[in-house]
Amino acid sequence: MKLHTRDVFETMRADLLLVEARVELAATVDYPIASTVVRDLIQAGGKRLRPLLLLLAGRAFRYDLDQLVTAAAGIELLHTASLVHDDTVDRASLRRGKPTLNSMLGSGAVILVGDYLFAQSAMLAAATMNPRVVGVFASTLADICDGQLREMFDAHHIHQSRADYERRIFGKTASLFAGSAEMGAILADAPDAAVAALRAFGSDVGMAFQIIDDILDLREGTQRLGKPAGQDLRQGTVTLPTMLYAAKLPSTSSATERLQAIIAGDVDSTAEIDQLVIDIRASGALDEAFAVAESFAESARARIAFLPDDETRDLLEDLTDVAIGRRS
Amino acid sequence: MKLHTRDVFETMRADLLLVEARVELAATVDYPIASTVVRDLIQAGGKRLRPLLLLLAGRAFRYDLDQLVTAAAGIELLHTASLVHDDTVDRASLRRGKPTLNSMLGSGAVILVGDYLFAQSAMLAAATMNPRVVGVFASTLADICDGQLREMFDAHHIHQSRADYERRIFGKTASLFAGSAEMGAILADAPDAAVAALRAFGSDVGMAFQIIDDILDLREGTQRLGKPAGQDLRQGTVTLPTMLYAAKLPSTSSATERLQAIIAGDVDSTAEIDQLVIDIRASGALDEAFAVAESFAESARARIAFLPDDETRDLLEDLTDVAIGRRS
Repeated sequence: MKLHTRDVFETMRADLLLVEARVELAATVDYPIASTVVRDLIQAGGKRLRPLLLLLAGRAFRYDLDQLVTAAAGIELLHTASLVHDDTVDRASLRRGKPTLNSMLGSGAVILVGDYLFAQSAMLAAATMNPRVVGVFASTLADICDGQLREMFDAHHIHQSRADYERRIFGKTASLFAGSAEMGAILADAPDAAVAALRAFGSDVGMAFQIIDDILDLREGTQRLGKPAGQDLRQGTVTLPTMLYAAKLPSTSSATERLQAIIAGDVDSTAEIDQLVIDIRASGALDEAFAVAESFAESARARIAFLPDDETRDLLEDLTDVAIGRRS
Repeated sequence: MKLHTRDVFETMRADLLLVEARVELAATVDYPIASTVVRDLIQAGGKRLRPLLLLLAGRAFRYDLDQLVTAAAGIELLHTASLVHDDTVDRASLRRGKPTLNSMLGSGAVILVGDYLFAQSAMLAAATMNPRVVGVFASTLADICDGQLREMFDAHHIHQSRADYERRIFGKTASLFAGSAEMGAILADAPDAAVAALRAFGSDVGMAFQIIDDILDLREGTQRLGKPAGQDLRQGTVTLPTMLYAAKLPSTSSATERLQAIIAGDVDSTAEIDQLVIDIRASGALDEAFAVAESFAESARARIAFLPDDETRDLLEDLTDVAIGRRS
């Protein structure tokens, strides 16, 4: 049920185009092959949810559009750089339905191209000339790395708590949503309480977004996501739906053993993993996970109830709906 | 001939210990294996020439020691992060005589640990709360990546100009020396002309340092450098001594063909590469390259002649001697 009437993409189109232009300029790479692949990656883009969040968080206060656009471009490039390295870590061959840099260049070049994009993103953050914004930028990068390292070191262990999972997805995904909203609010001179509330809003939206992503990994095939279904299971990554599914199984059963063996990486058979995906779908765990995502979205909406500007609040709610997959 | 009497390491020992402590704190990693390897890497340390340069550049002006120490720790971590990624790119198994992270952890983990160290270094730069310093930090990171990417994309081509070489080693090495000196001067409120002069000084010292490194790669064995001699040739990287050697050969000769084949990566035989190393040593190219390094060091000394503070100038000259290998 959509209560609000504004379309966030339509309303923000002009500002987003400014961000695009800044991103493309900063990501111009002067080396053969790399330049084309980086451009493709950026153009294939996602929905630019993080820059949107930054722009909207600033919009409710006294904002300078050029500063917001600079920081938003920095955030999008930071996100892109982190995808580039993450694909190298995962050795993924598709991202956003396109070949990864990884499948086109040697991994050495990919590491350096990722670093180069990090540098460009840091230059954009620095260009705001706002030390607090730079501080948020740097600590967000640390949070992202922490989340990705946790994902790697936690992999292949079935015994994980919900807190482990939430900490990991906060780092990996929600931290950048939180940082985006915080940077927008800081740049627009929002009062401290509003900065904190918008940061918390961003974090909730990011948590919801990642849970949905974890659900989609099990629900959808290659077509929609541009990568094979059940990828997380194949990598030994335990996500919320898998946790909820595991909780339904008797602690000693062949289903539990199979799940443990797959997460441990002891099963190569594609057919067995495909069957596990089907069983998780049938168990109702995806719907339960969706309810958790919904509760984060609900919490997000409550965080911004204080915003006096109806329009911005409405747009932020629309963004929340997009993040949670209620509308595309 | 050493005209100055002060020992830079002795004089700066106390300040450097503060930098060490900050680096170790920031580099504390919370994951098994990674934490030990990162600590080893940092403790194996180099000579901390970059932090020294930063501290000294600030020392001639109105400096706040804590700010200089923070930025110097950031520079050392940035350097460490870049070594971690560079070793992954090169698939090196030894660095500073110790096993690389790379040989202990999967390359995915190494990429993320490097990113984490980048994040920590950016947090230290941000902690100076000085937007100009953050700007220098970010653009230096971009320069480093540029140099490393050039090294990769220029590899295996024998036809390169001296300008190509200098541009590459500026990015890869001298940019961080330049940025270190610049950051120190900015933090100590040096006048713009002094900031520019100290940046140029740092750049010259860095160029000299890298040329010496390129000479040592051909002159020394595993023992001293902790890696095999002639490593650059084996990776197809054309350095100054090799360029100077190539210039002495008739354009059509078996020696020229052999050199081209080795740089192109068409020769696997260790014996042939070892023979080329011996021939380069015998050709006098190492001495010629050393003269080029000397001229950069000479230029560096001239850049700081303006400094009113005798002691700091003397210490910077001592640092230059260390960089060029005149004393260890």
